[in-house]
Amino acid sequence: MTTIRQVAKTAGVSTSTVSRYISQNGYVSQKAAQDIERAIRELNYVPNFMAQSLKTKKNQLVGLLLPDISNPFFPRLARGVEEFLKEKGYRVMLGNTNNKGQLEEEYLNVLLQCNAAGIITTHDFTKEYPEISIPVVVVDRVTQETQYGVFSDNEAGGRLAAEAVWQAGSRHILLVRGPLDKAENLNQRFQGSYDFLEKHQAKFSICDSSSFDFDQIQLEAREQLAIHPDIDSIIAPSDIHAIGYIHEVLNCGKRIPEDIQIVGYDDILMSRFVYPALSTIHQSSYKMGQKAAELIYKITNQLPVQENRIKLPVHYVERETVRREKDE
Amino acid sequence: MTTIRQVAKTAGVSTSTVSRYISQNGYVSQKAAQDIERAIRELNYVPNFMAQSLKTKKNQLVGLLLPDISNPFFPRLARGVEEFLKEKGYRVMLGNTNNKGQLEEEYLNVLLQCNAAGIITTHDFTKEYPEISIPVVVVDRVTQETQYGVFSDNEAGGRLAAEAVWQAGSRHILLVRGPLDKAENLNQRFQGSYDFLEKHQAKFSICDSSSFDFDQIQLEAREQLAIHPDIDSIIAPSDIHAIGYIHEVLNCGKRIPEDIQIVGYDDILMSRFVYPALSTIHQSSYKMGQKAAELIYKITNQLPVQENRIKLPVHYVERETVRREKDE
Repeated sequence: MTTIRQVAKTAGVSTSTVSRYISQNGYVSQKAAQDIERAIRELNYVPNFMAQSLKTKKNQLVGLLLPDISNPFFPRLARGVEEFLKEKGYRVMLGNTNNKGQLEEEYLNVLLQCNAAGIITTHDFTKEYPEISIPVVVVDRVTQETQYGVFSDNEAGGRLAAEAVWQAGSRHILLVRGPLDKAENLNQRFQGSYDFLEKHQAKFSICDSSSFDFDQIQLEAREQLAIHPDIDSIIAPSDIHAIGYIHEVLNCGKRIPEDIQIVGYDDILMSRFVYPALSTIHQSSYKMGQKAAELIYKITNQLPVQENRIKLPVHYVERETVRREKDE
Repeated sequence: MTTIRQVAKTAGVSTSTVSRYISQNGYVSQKAAQDIERAIRELNYVPNFMAQSLKTKKNQLVGLLLPDISNPFFPRLARGVEEFLKEKGYRVMLGNTNNKGQLEEEYLNVLLQCNAAGIITTHDFTKEYPEISIPVVVVDRVTQETQYGVFSDNEAGGRLAAEAVWQAGSRHILLVRGPLDKAENLNQRFQGSYDFLEKHQAKFSICDSSSFDFDQIQLEAREQLAIHPDIDSIIAPSDIHAIGYIHEVLNCGKRIPEDIQIVGYDDILMSRFVYPALSTIHQSSYKMGQKAAELIYKITNQLPVQENRIKLPVHYVERETVRREKDE
């Protein structure tokens, strides 16, 4: 925390000059004013009382940093955060980081300057910025070092997806692995499916997707369907992926689920509205947001925290893209 | 703008006491400190230098207030805003107002306290809060009094939608009017379709939708399809509505577009991925965001503004839910 003395020293003036400048009470030469202003900026000086004033309940702010709000998973997560914190008198402001470190850093600066009460993020930056002292809760993409986090049981989800297509009968499964980063969620999902298929000696091929971008997914789907003309089941790493594959499968003139069955992951609202409606693994992004908000609230208000890493259950939702067991 | 003199007066102390308190330089009794703190809070006092410090380019903040980020139209708009302003060294923070006035007011407070450089909003609040002196640009839901706004040519869009289904041949059209508020966009869309259908003496029925919520839309669609068993064309006020109707039409066992054709509005990314792919009116939410960002940037930096109300063109995108003219 920068003090007024450091500002005075950096500006090369006395503390009482700084004091007069800040309070706009008494004479300060133009040169001194400029030097003080520069020092305040350089040192990022925030007078204590501002922090206090902003910490009154009325305008408490929580920052929510998300990688991509065009993936419908995240707007619902945001809704969960907002609805929990609204009740408690907090406002949530959302920053879209596009998975870019520089944007993240700039958002962190803004949030600290606004005296945010806490930050909810999909990227655990706490090791990179140990100086950040406000509570940080990681959602969805929790790493092994994450202190406070809320995430789904991804391994169980991956297993359930594999089980669904396997039980419905499948000769050749395409297991699509989502874009990997340092976070473990997509890899755990993949691993859950992989282990199940290995254990049951299912025939399957693996391919990697590089993106959550629709156009890219469609290209990949077209390519994979051409490489593997005999696949009759697809395990997608997300609903967005599954929807891209559905479109390409239908474009090839194949029927879903009779010729090719597809299972998604996430249960975004849209998965009910595509045709055929998508069978998928449900994870509650809304609840994830809610639980993260509750954690932030508890930490900020020094309430007891029973669980600092919260794993949420997932379940399989049967709709129209996976064959019925009885059909076989 | 609150001055230090007003703070002193409200707190019942001298200005030099306030000055000592703010700069933490010299003795202030505990009682006086409490009174000053309360006065600062009550008056929302922000010392000038803070505003200056935050106005350095590095951490310029623009607030973006949207009604509902779960409608995919808005995340793309946000992307347009972000990408333009990122280049210029601004950060964008997003607030989800849920169309609620109280939330909006709270976000405005936060943004002003954070010394935001400007605000982009779908709701023109400038008449309600004349004291807000930072630039405000309204997107999408511009009213007749809006000073700075970016919006689509909604009337042309409505006309193009009606023209598409009419030219493909239709015996009975259902014209769905979107939820109306003070903004004119949905009404203009409706009016554009209405005028075209009247002029061509088409047979059509009108119904009102009360929501952009999927579940609600599905209910309404089921009801309307039961009331009008003979309709063979639907003009939807948004893609979200169109997708809800597609699902219900297919659920009834009818074919699209052979039995019932449907035209949407917005061209959200998902409209390409539903099945059958949705024929719709394209309006660029991305460009809308970009143009709004450019306006904010110009106003903030006192650059000349050629056009303060920008109307963007729309066009019809032919996909699979409207019959081909040649089919008839």
